[in-house]
Order: sequence, then structure tokens, then C-alpha cells
Amino acid sequence: MNRNAGPKPAFLHPYLSHSMKQVYFTAGPAELYPTVYAHLQEAMDRQIGSISHRSAQFRSIYQFCAEQLRALMSIPETHGIFFTGSASEVWERVLLNCVEHESFHLINGSFSKKFCEYATAVHKYTHKQEKPFGEGFDYGEVEVPEYAELIAVTQNETSSGVQMRTVDIHKLKRSNGRKLMAVDIVSSAPYPDLDFSLIDSAFFSVQKAFGLPAGLGVWIANEKCLEKAELLRHGDQTIGAHNSLPLLWKNFKNYETPATPNVLLIYLLGKIAEDFNRIGVETIRKETEEKAKSLYKFIENHPLFEPFVKEERHRSRTVVVATTKKPSSEIIAKVKESGMVIGSGYGQFKDSQIRIANFPATSAGQVGRLIDVLGKL
Amino acid sequence: MNRNAGPKPAFLHPYLSHSMKQVYFTAGPAELYPTVYAHLQEAMDRQIGSISHRSAQFRSIYQFCAEQLRALMSIPETHGIFFTGSASEVWERVLLNCVEHESFHLINGSFSKKFCEYATAVHKYTHKQEKPFGEGFDYGEVEVPEYAELIAVTQNETSSGVQMRTVDIHKLKRSNGRKLMAVDIVSSAPYPDLDFSLIDSAFFSVQKAFGLPAGLGVWIANEKCLEKAELLRHGDQTIGAHNSLPLLWKNFKNYETPATPNVLLIYLLGKIAEDFNRIGVETIRKETEEKAKSLYKFIENHPLFEPFVKEERHRSRTVVVATTKKPSSEIIAKVKESGMVIGSGYGQFKDSQIRIANFPATSAGQVGRLIDVLGKL
Repeated sequence: MNRNAGPKPAFLHPYLSHSMKQVYFTAGPAELYPTVYAHLQEAMDRQIGSISHRSAQFRSIYQFCAEQLRALMSIPETHGIFFTGSASEVWERVLLNCVEHESFHLINGSFSKKFCEYATAVHKYTHKQEKPFGEGFDYGEVEVPEYAELIAVTQNETSSGVQMRTVDIHKLKRSNGRKLMAVDIVSSAPYPDLDFSLIDSAFFSVQKAFGLPAGLGVWIANEKCLEKAELLRHGDQTIGAHNSLPLLWKNFKNYETPATPNVLLIYLLGKIAEDFNRIGVETIRKETEEKAKSLYKFIENHPLFEPFVKEERHRSRTVVVATTKKPSSEIIAKVKESGMVIGSGYGQFKDSQIRIANFPATSAGQVGRLIDVLGKL
Repeated sequence: MNRNAGPKPAFLHPYLSHSMKQVYFTAGPAELYPTVYAHLQEAMDRQIGSISHRSAQFRSIYQFCAEQLRALMSIPETHGIFFTGSASEVWERVLLNCVEHESFHLINGSFSKKFCEYATAVHKYTHKQEKPFGEGFDYGEVEVPEYAELIAVTQNETSSGVQMRTVDIHKLKRSNGRKLMAVDIVSSAPYPDLDFSLIDSAFFSVQKAFGLPAGLGVWIANEKCLEKAELLRHGDQTIGAHNSLPLLWKNFKNYETPATPNVLLIYLLGKIAEDFNRIGVETIRKETEEKAKSLYKFIENHPLFEPFVKEERHRSRTVVVATTKKPSSEIIAKVKESGMVIGSGYGQFKDSQIRIANFPATSAGQVGRLIDVLGKL
């Protein structure tokens, strides 16, 4: 094998013809955003996979990504923007760094439940308020326990297709100003218009609405989170060794990371965020809402489908879940024949539901085509 | 911006001409292995960035990668092969899952020191034996404390260019059979011929000798590690919530992961491991030794350089460190003019040392060219 001789093999052959490709309407990993391919080519040309994470070149990549995310999601300078291996890792980091004894979890699906289980696993005392699968929370009904230090909210539940409206999240924080609030926006960012002058921490992963391959978590946290972590650091419990908030923050000041991060994905995330900023976050949100509206309208009116989430205000705009009148596997297989991939229900709803991601990577035209195909079943 | 219309942008333009590219002799992130480009093209064609991590397609990717690594590194079925965000994350996971109270660390550079600091940060009582920077350990001089549960060995120190020979590591384990042993092979795997019938755990990251972009840690651990973790799980201390060994193992049985992993890098790692297996690990090791020999011979004989590690047996075969008679920044800049990137010294040795990675991605011819350029300084 003549692996080292001559110039590197090139990206010579063109991308597979459109007809051979599937369009992924899955909730993440999901369809890649169309510009990813060109950005990846550029990254490989610039040898981004080889540059040092202690170089000026890396620092400018980190800075660019952070600035694009700040602009896109209106993240003020009071908040640092950090990178981890995944959003699940952030669950653990938030709990270790921002909770001494007690956390409070609003459980509106399987992932918010896992977030709560993480808290138990790292030996925090957990309070929870739980909804039946498919139902969501309004501000008025939430009862925050007195001694909870952190309120953990899952704005968008990938498992059940339930959302909590940002207006409710903001009210909840306003009436609990002295508690920290961490918001899981894993499968919705940058859609939710979170007010970061209120929200202490939020996090997401890049394989959902940002349309990138998996392998990077993004953690946004403010100075109050840092203060708490600094306090806990000297206490009886560990705040962890890897990617602790004080370490992340110290390195972030210089646009570096404590350990070698996923440089390539940070580069690509910056580029996608820049693309989103060019379009404008308001346009992206509006398009998301319009596509969601067509999807919900369709499943409300087609005899084979029924929206799983009954209350319109609790329906996720980015993950649409429908109960199906025949086994979802049959529907998924049929749709696949037309070159589209939709997800099954989560857990026990695997066979009785479908999940359709509504991320920026899939256009109104593609959503229309999916609806056409589903309509003919 | 017409981002959603028509077919996806293609990888149309060829890779930048060879002359415009730098060859990275840095210790990681490092030169990409030459076949990475073609594998990446293939991965994008197959939409690996979009597939579900709960799909049969992903399970076969994980299985393939694990099988190729087993073959390459002679990893028996007693050991599981797991994926994390980075090797630094593995430091923490090993300590949380395999140590109840006390760990013992052989410190032969800055990264083994960090491993030990991680232990303190997660509230373990740490014992250490430390060498001056640039010196290494032999079996005979190691004194293992009675109550240490885990011996942490850094086989290859990326910071100082020091190695501990596998023969010494094996003896150390043989005479401490009841203690667990974790071996850091971050910047040397698959070079060291570790005997996994002895070694309980080892770990590496992919941006070093496997020549991939950063963003994936690989953790190898045996059933004894799992038993320990299962024991600790019910104890007073937390074994962590994210990527705990019992969770990783449970998912691994089905070739899955607890959370969404870096699917793309797992795919690429499997492909690179397959390429290495085609060449044969013995050939790769022999080539590594020959290239290392030329590098050390050169720096021993050139008036501008001196090997930092005095004892031949302690000299890393994959990270060659030389003390320089003039500021290393000048040398690094000169070498860069010839299209090659070498690293500076680590920490306080930044200006007085150079570090040259000797990974499979750089051929004997390229190493020869580097030596020519250095020789003319």
C-alpha cells in the first residue's frame, strides 16, 4: 500500500447525485445543513484537522464561533461559551458545578428525566415535577422547592415533541431570581428566543438544528454559574476534574480549551452560525414556524395521523411527533422508498409514533414533499 | 442565500496542490493520515453524519471499528472498547470508576502530572513518584504504595518525549497483580505492544498516531475495571453520571453508546485501523522505530541540537524532543518556510526545545526531508 508517496488523495469525485441521497428528517443526528460540504472542503484545504489547539489560528476559530453564536442567539458578554464532547456531558457538568445539594427538574419527556437521573448519579438530592409523556408545563403550575439551587428546564423534548414556551421559562426565572436556571435547548437552538439577561445557562449539541455531524456540545453559562462553581470547588464535593467550569472559563478568556477539543467541528459550527446570521435568526425562526405549521396541519387532518401533543402551545416547533394509526415501521419504510428518512417514536412509543425533525437544513420545499408522500399513504 | 434549492453543493474542486500544503510534524493535532481524505469523502457520500446512533448501520460501524482495533492492538474479548469526547475525559472516568480511595501515579512529564491532578480534583488520595522533566522510569525503581488501588502509567509523555518501556510496564503489573493498571498511550498507540492479558485499561486519542482530526477518545478497559466500578457504584462516592463504565459497557454489548457519540470519527477510526492492519502493525512499528532512529541520530550529531532525553531506553519513539542551541522559534520559523510544521517545547521549555512527532502519517521520505532542512540551519 503506497500510502505515503506523492500528493494527498484529493476530493476529486463529485458528491453523489441527488437522487441517490436520502433526506434525513430525523431528530439528530439529522440532515446536514447544505453548506456543510463546502465548509468541510475548505476546512480540509486549510488543514484545520492538523492545527494546534494552542495556536493563534485555533484561538481565532474559537473567537469567530463564539462571536457568531453571540450574534445569532443574543448571548451577552456576561456568559461564556464553552465546548464539550456532547450535550449529555453538559448535564453532568452543570450539576457538578452549579449544585451543591439540591436540584429541581421539570420532567416533560425522556431526556429531561435522564438529566434528573444524572443528578442522582452524581449524588445530588433531586426534586422533580413530572408530566405524563406528551404533556408540557406552563409557568403557573410549576412549584419550585425552597431549597433547590438550580432549576433544570428542558425547553424542547426530543423524545415526546413537547416544548416549554420561552415566555413561561422567563417568568419562572423572574419569580425565582436567586436560583440558577439551566435550559436544555439541545434539539431546538437557535430557535428559542431565550433572554440571556435572565437565563444563567443553556446548552445544545450541533447534530440537531445546526445540521452538523455529532461530536460537540456547546455550553453557555454566566458569571453566577462560575461563582457557584468557585464556591463549590472548595467544598466537600468534587466539581469534577475534566471540563470543570472554572477551568473552561479560565481557558475561554484566551479562546482556548483545557484539553484538545473538536477543532474541526468548532470551525464548522462558526461557519454555520455565520450562514444563519446572514439569513437572519428572525427569518430562520419564521421559516421554522411556517414549516411546523404545515406539518401539524397535515397530521391534524390526515386520518392516519394524530398530533401526539394535544396542547398547541406545548407542541415543539422543531420535533413534530405524530401518533400513527398503523405501525410506524410501515410508514417509515414507505417514506424511505421516496428517499426520505423519518424517525420512529421514542422508547415505548417506537411502533405507534413517528418523529419528524423540522430543522433549518430541510427546506419548506422538502417538507412539502414529505407531506405529499405521507398524504398518499 | 439560496441554501435549500437543488442538489447539495459537491466536493467538486480538487484538494489544494501539494506545494501549498504544510506537513505537520506536531504531536497532535498532527498530520492527517493520507487516506483520511478518501475515507471522509466516502463517509459524506454515505451520509454517515446523518445516521442515527441507534441504527443497525451505526452498530456495524462501531463493531467494525472495535474489531479492527482488536486486531491491530491484540485486544482480547475480556476488554471493552469505548468512546469518549477525548482522552482527558478518560483520565477522569478511570479515576471515578476504578478508584475508591487511593491512586498511584508515575509522573514523567506534564500530562502524567495532569492525570494525577485530575485524581486530586475528584477527591482521591494520590500517591506519586516523580522524575525530573526528561527522565523516565524503569521497573526496578518503582515503589508501589500498599493501599493504592490503581497504578497510573503514562507510557508516552507528549510533553517531555519520555517513554516507559512496555517490558517495564508489564513487570510492574506482574508484581502488583491485585492492583488495577491504567496506561496512557495517548500519543503512541498503536506503537506500544501492550500485553492486554496483563493491562487492565489503556486509552488514547485519535489526533495523534492515528492521524485523524481531534474529537474522540478511545478507552479500553477489562472486566476487572467493570467489577470495580459496579462495586463503587453502590458506595459513598459517585462514579459519575456521563460515560460511567457500567453504562458504557451495557451499551457496548450492543455496539451502542450511552449518548450520541462522534459517529463520523468512529467510522474514520475504523477505516484507518483497517488501513493499518493491511500494512501490518509490525511493519508500522518497525517503520516508526527506523524513522525515530534517524531523527535521534540526526539530533545527536548536529551541533545545533541535543536529545533532551539522555537515556536511549526512555526516549519516546513517537515524540522526539531536542534541546536547541538557538531559540526554537527561529528554527520552527525556518522549517515552516520549507512547508513543514514542527512543535515547540512544552511549558517552560517552549523556547529551548523542539518537538517532532513521528507518527505513521509522515513517511520515511518526509522525515528525511525534515532532517535535510534541519541540517542546513
